[in-house]
Amino acid sequence: MNQKNQFAVGVDLGGTNIKIGIVSENGKILVKNSIPTQADRGPKKVLDNICKGVSDLISSSYVKIAGIGIGCPGIVLPEEGVVKSPPNLPGWKTVPVSQIIFETLHLKTIVENDANVAAVGELVFGAGKKLNDFIMVTLGTGVGGGIVINKKVYHGMHGAAGEIGHITINYKGRKCNCGSIGCIETYAGNQYLKARVIEELQFHPDSLIVGLVQNNFEKISPLIIQKAASIGDKYSKSVIQNLGLHLGAAFASLGNAFDITNFIVGGGVAGFGKPLSDSIAHTASSRVMTPLRNKIKIIPAKLRNDAGIKGASALIFNKY
Amino acid sequence: MNQKNQFAVGVDLGGTNIKIGIVSENGKILVKNSIPTQADRGPKKVLDNICKGVSDLISSSYVKIAGIGIGCPGIVLPEEGVVKSPPNLPGWKTVPVSQIIFETLHLKTIVENDANVAAVGELVFGAGKKLNDFIMVTLGTGVGGGIVINKKVYHGMHGAAGEIGHITINYKGRKCNCGSIGCIETYAGNQYLKARVIEELQFHPDSLIVGLVQNNFEKISPLIIQKAASIGDKYSKSVIQNLGLHLGAAFASLGNAFDITNFIVGGGVAGFGKPLSDSIAHTASSRVMTPLRNKIKIIPAKLRNDAGIKGASALIFNKY
Repeated sequence: MNQKNQFAVGVDLGGTNIKIGIVSENGKILVKNSIPTQADRGPKKVLDNICKGVSDLISSSYVKIAGIGIGCPGIVLPEEGVVKSPPNLPGWKTVPVSQIIFETLHLKTIVENDANVAAVGELVFGAGKKLNDFIMVTLGTGVGGGIVINKKVYHGMHGAAGEIGHITINYKGRKCNCGSIGCIETYAGNQYLKARVIEELQFHPDSLIVGLVQNNFEKISPLIIQKAASIGDKYSKSVIQNLGLHLGAAFASLGNAFDITNFIVGGGVAGFGKPLSDSIAHTASSRVMTPLRNKIKIIPAKLRNDAGIKGASALIFNKY
Repeated sequence: MNQKNQFAVGVDLGGTNIKIGIVSENGKILVKNSIPTQADRGPKKVLDNICKGVSDLISSSYVKIAGIGIGCPGIVLPEEGVVKSPPNLPGWKTVPVSQIIFETLHLKTIVENDANVAAVGELVFGAGKKLNDFIMVTLGTGVGGGIVINKKVYHGMHGAAGEIGHITINYKGRKCNCGSIGCIETYAGNQYLKARVIEELQFHPDSLIVGLVQNNFEKISPLIIQKAASIGDKYSKSVIQNLGLHLGAAFASLGNAFDITNFIVGGGVAGFGKPLSDSIAHTASSRVMTPLRNKIKIIPAKLRNDAGIKGASALIFNKY
């Protein structure tokens, strides 16, 4: 084992599972685990579960731990160690997560918003290593965002910055879960995308998707759409193309506002790969202000499933 | 005269006129002037005009000048003193404005983008004095923007940040002069707004606007719409209401991305006053993410015609 190397615990707190890993300073996972969040049992139980999971994992390893980094949903104030009103975690209002965990485990504890953690992961270990400024976009059930300016996460006035998913691209569009209308999430979020595809399939009865899901439209997923596109399905190709148009329009707005031209794209939907990246890049480049037009870069995220654990562990070794 | 007070020259470089003023550190204009830009004669002539205008004004006063601040259109790199490709100034590519003016007048010279200068003006002398973070939006021919984070202008990767006018609110909307589609400028920019009103008036032949402009639709302006609304014209009221809806949608996107909830609104169209502010606030508050919902503030700009001169002069006394 590298003597110079330090280790930290990275925790990825999700609505369903808590993923925990012991990660070296250079991003290697020594050991990891996943336990149920039991979110329905309220914040105390969830924090107990984190402490127990972390403690068990530390006991099973033989390395000195520098601290615990935790990625949480919701508004997170890393300086105060506080998490506010995370969606999917019922009963949480303002919870001093860092303090509670420190008092139990006596290890330095840093919390950060989960989308920001994904950005930190890419910054430290992934596709953002050589970038000073980028916007990290995670395409999953929702569309998450983290904004990195000068190698630091941009948190905003109230720790709520980077809600990329809720940039409106059509103010007369569909209602979004957030309460707004026409957010990019209503185009690119998994459930919304699936609902659109199901609606549109009535006009594309010959699409290969229909056979792939054996007429059970509930089975439609990004993977299925990608599969259909890869075997030549025109409609599926147009879905990916249009998704790129929608994301590209949002990225152009962000480019014009932030003057940031590097976009790292991760998450399930990003599995559409190059056809999606190309379509995003085409739209964003043609819509952003002239001086930025040849600077737009759509970069695939490098970290995959362990992005949350790795990014969270990195919070211990530097301030982001 | 206040002995402690210092003076600087503020220059507002426009496509048609150059406005110049000698301004005290606390924002009082001692003397001012306006001369033709002669933009068609290229950068050398324009810079000569600035130098001559500044020099004449200084000669006419009897105060010591700490330096010259200049607000320019286009991408401006204040650190380098360079202006890039300003629209409305033909023949300009990359011009080292600060250096050229310093070499002629031997006074410290700072350049800044004109929309950012408007933000600096409000920050130092106007509605932003007590704010750490705000977005300044100037509603004129175009929709200009300046983003202030922690009392500094946010410049972005290439000095091009804050192009608020080119946030898309409808990706399938009208073509914008910038090359994109459905930018907020295509809803709120003076010319676009006028064109929309002319189009819509065919469905509102009884609007009081028709009489106010004596059937000459070329005379339609924000002032006319405001006048018609103030005497009870329903259609004009709906124009202001809708403008608030459009701006509010863009502000919600910005709020979600930057986590900035203070918007200072200036420029001609802002003359619609409280009905516009209320409509913007209503839409932005209902569309921004829940934690920011009760924090949105739409604040009228305080500096009027001299905003450019005052803001530019402030560049000399502090770094923004």
